Amino acid sequence: MLIITHTMSPSSSVTISSRFHDSFTKNAFRSYLAEFISTFFFVLLVVGSSMSSRKMMPDAVLNPTSLVVGGIANAFALSSVLYIAWDISGGHVNPAVTFAMAVGGHISVPTALFYWVAQLIASVMACLVLKVILVGIHVPTYSIAEEMTGFGASVLEGALTFVLVYTVYAARDPRRGPLSSIGILVIGLIAGASALAAGPFSGGSMNPACAFGSAAIAGSFRNQAVYWVGPLIGATIAGLLYDNAMFPSHATDPIRGVSGGIGV
Amino acid sequence: MLIITHTMSPSSSVTISSRFHDSFTKNAFRSYLAEFISTFFFVLLVVGSSMSSRKMMPDAVLNPTSLVVGGIANAFALSSVLYIAWDISGGHVNPAVTFAMAVGGHISVPTALFYWVAQLIASVMACLVLKVILVGIHVPTYSIAEEMTGFGASVLEGALTFVLVYTVYAARDPRRGPLSSIGILVIGLIAGASALAAGPFSGGSMNPACAFGSAAIAGSFRNQAVYWVGPLIGATIAGLLYDNAMFPSHATDPIRGVSGGIGV
Amino acid sequence: MLIITHTMSPSSSVTISSRFHDSFTKNAFRSYLAEFISTFFFVLLVVGSSMSSRKMMPDAVLNPTSLVVGGIANAFALSSVLYIAWDISGGHVNPAVTFAMAVGGHISVPTALFYWVAQLIASVMACLVLKVILVGIHVPTYSIAEEMTGFGASVLEGALTFVLVYTVYAARDPRRGPLSSIGILVIGLIAGASALAAGPFSGGSMNPACAFGSAAIAGSFRNQAVYWVGPLIGATIAGLLYDNAMFPSHATDPIRGVSGGIGV
Amino acid sequence: MLIITHTMSPSSSVTISSRFHDSFTKNAFRSYLAEFISTFFFVLLVVGSSMSSRKMMPDAVLNPTSLVVGGIANAFALSSVLYIAWDISGGHVNPAVTFAMAVGGHISVPTALFYWVAQLIASVMACLVLKVILVGIHVPTYSIAEEMTGFGASVLEGALTFVLVYTVYAARDPRRGPLSSIGILVIGLIAGASALAAGPFSGGSMNPACAFGSAAIAGSFRNQAVYWVGPLIGATIAGLLYDNAMFPSHATDPIRGVSGGIGV
Repeated sequence: MLIITHTMSPSSSVTISSRFHDSFTKNAFRSYLAEFISTFFFVLLVVGSSMSSRKMMPDAVLNPTSLVVGGIANAFALSSVLYIAWDISGGHVNPAVTFAMAVGGHISVPTALFYWVAQLIASVMACLVLKVILVGIHVPTYSIAEEMTGFGASVLEGALTFVLVYTVYAARDPRRGPLSSIGILVIGLIAGASALAAGPFSGGSMNPACAFGSAAIAGSFRNQAVYWVGPLIGATIAGLLYDNAMFPSHATDPIRGVSGGIGV
Repeated sequence: MLIITHTMSPSSSVTISSRFHDSFTKNAFRSYLAEFISTFFFVLLVVGSSMSSRKMMPDAVLNPTSLVVGGIANAFALSSVLYIAWDISGGHVNPAVTFAMAVGGHISVPTALFYWVAQLIASVMACLVLKVILVGIHVPTYSIAEEMTGFGASVLEGALTFVLVYTVYAARDPRRGPLSSIGILVIGLIAGASALAAGPFSGGSMNPACAFGSAAIAGSFRNQAVYWVGPLIGATIAGLLYDNAMFPSHATDPIRGVSGGIGV
Repeated sequence: MLIITHTMSPSSSVTISSRFHDSFTKNAFRSYLAEFISTFFFVLLVVGSSMSSRKMMPDAVLNPTSLVVGGIANAFALSSVLYIAWDISGGHVNPAVTFAMAVGGHISVPTALFYWVAQLIASVMACLVLKVILVGIHVPTYSIAEEMTGFGASVLEGALTFVLVYTVYAARDPRRGPLSSIGILVIGLIAGASALAAGPFSGGSMNPACAFGSAAIAGSFRNQAVYWVGPLIGATIAGLLYDNAMFPSHATDPIRGVSGGIGV
Repeated sequence: MLIITHTMSPSSSVTISSRFHDSFTKNAFRSYLAEFISTFFFVLLVVGSSMSSRKMMPDAVLNPTSLVVGGIANAFALSSVLYIAWDISGGHVNPAVTFAMAVGGHISVPTALFYWVAQLIASVMACLVLKVILVGIHVPTYSIAEEMTGFGASVLEGALTFVLVYTVYAARDPRRGPLSSIGILVIGLIAGASALAAGPFSGGSMNPACAFGSAAIAGSFRNQAVYWVGPLIGATIAGLLYDNAMFPSHATDPIRGVSGGIGV
């Protein structure tokens, strides 16, 4: 809240040192802890669900039920972990969201860096816990289908991250009134649908932290760039488009297009 | 908003040229872009999910799990894309909804035409992206089961589009008070249930844009009329019934029937 | 609304003839039409989904995926059809709900009878449409597993109808404040969970209209009593318990027990 | 409400006897009944769904579809039963939640004991009803996969109960404003995701009442400690963390960290 006010206000008295200082307040540390908790459980639930469905059917890679499990797990887990962090850290739980917010000036660069650190450590620790507890079951990594190029996978992950981050921006926008209350649920739904559509092709990560944590514990950073380049670009475009074209921040009233309500 | 006010007001000073002009304002272009984005991602997610479940099991046409994937993908994707377009374009994302709104006077005919263009181009482009990225996997088209006639399929698609559009009207009606906040979720649910019920019979499109885009990229317009005639008729009946019989617009208060709340 | 006020007020000037007259007003007919539309589509979607999963796998009776389809279809369809009828008819869509409401004095007996007629005709027509359109596919009826007695099935259906109707009462209670907005979704969730739990045992109908319509079209009323006796008794107990013990109607404030909020 | 006020107020005039007396008021008995009803139906639906999927496929232990059934049943059932008890008993439906609330001073110890009794009796009775009605089908118990140790299972169940109870605290916090309305749904989602992630490993109980009831009826208390130690510890840590670090109760305004809304 403080930092946003600084960034948005025309006052130029905000120095880099004060911004940097804001990243070390008690509230800031609470935010980092909230990001850590939410990202830890998001990765635990999503990667754990993937391991669950593999355990139930060893050849689950070829079973569409594991696709259903992945879609539902992504939707349920993301809505939940966003819910508990929403008021504290803003509910990023995703380095791509944090990146877009930093590019758009919604959080300061130092804060964004601490968010990234919290998210990446949380993801690695979640995968480590899964590896230690579930002895003998392979921690899965996101992978790309044979018929796809790395570029194609990056485009797909980037496009799906675009719509995810666009939805996050819409859900956080207080000008949308009563729509705000269901925003957190909708973000989960878009993540679930994306996991269904992209799962067997590029993995459906849309979250560099997920890809990083599972790769770190599995010990294979093959194609890791795919899960960073596409999402970071997609997220940034989504944030800039939302802020500057679709819902410019200088507008104070709810902005409506050429269609309105029924029966008005 | 503007156009609706014009349409609804008794003032007859609204000329066709002014209406046409309204279709070229900045807000109007934002609406077209919102329809494009939402339709693009709806088709990408729904058709992509269908390709996902086929990839995971080559004979997925005969596997009921692909039915579950289709139902969930329709529900999750539609709620999400409606959410991000709701305040801007009204969240049609479906030529049948746009048609009903135009017949009912909620948007002008020129605007409806631009909406259709945005929706159809978006759908074609989404299928094109899927075809280019997912090399070697067939883009599926909506098809009709052997035991059904084209007329039967059209009736089924029309009936399901009727209840979809009826729900859209209910969700956009500000007189419904607190119910409005969950309306977007409910529209997704009805689409998901319809995809479960109609999937293996008529495809469960209920959206001419989906059928058009996949047919254009797959190069087969067989039975395309089924996915336009039924839905357009069903949508129009739903809109007229809602506006004129169930919730006439001259009523200003919430209208209640013979049943009320508990404990009142 | 009117009738409720009559029923609840101590005034004894409400004669049977005036109550009967209330059942023929324009608003009353709108309510019957709303019940017809919602019940028609509920049955069309739920029975249609069952036929869908059978078509995709002929031996679907033994496939747990058809269980998932049934659970999701019940949840999605019920929330949707309740949503569109909620403000008009009160959103019964179930003879057991109507019965409980009549016993509890929330609607008059003549009105309840018209609701039943609308619901039963709607269910029969929905199954008829499915039979005509989906030529050659058997309309399924609710049936009881071999290891169960008719009495056991009746108890199971009755218990699940109890919790369904109890949830309906909770969702319609305006004293529950912000909880009201998600009530319609929760009713769908309880129906979905019940269909998952009871599907392969007693069918998981919890709605006499569904059982009646499919039996009428399939031409077999075997075990029909199971789907009426249990649900009607369960629904009535739920309504009486809610009105008289858990949330007595003379209480004007939200009633709270021994636990409250966090951080208060 | 009364008891909370006592507990929270600095006044030391609250004697143990008055607290004990509060546990025998009419409102208190309504709360115990609400806990009983909700826990009974939660266990009936969750354990019943597990029996359903086993009936449909005898080797369902190895079928990932039973994983999907479990995830959806947990999510749908928990949200529903919390909804109907929320205003009365606070919607615990879980001895671990009650334990955390007692440790944190949100309910008195005598009340917590009565809650436990209501929850455990309800769970045993629900499993008994299932056993009696579904003759010849085995009531399943929660079990631990071969590759896991009891300690590992306890850690997993504890971690998932941590995030469940943390979410319950967030959902009950009135300072969270519009987020409160969807809290009940989110609690269901986190339970569903946890069941997906932990199902084939430790069972995914996160609720000692569930594990106790099914063990009592199946007659095997093997590993029962796992389903009590982990969840009780996880729940207590969640409650203390929420109350003391993340959302301290002395704060009166919504507390925000370093990120705020979009377009503010």
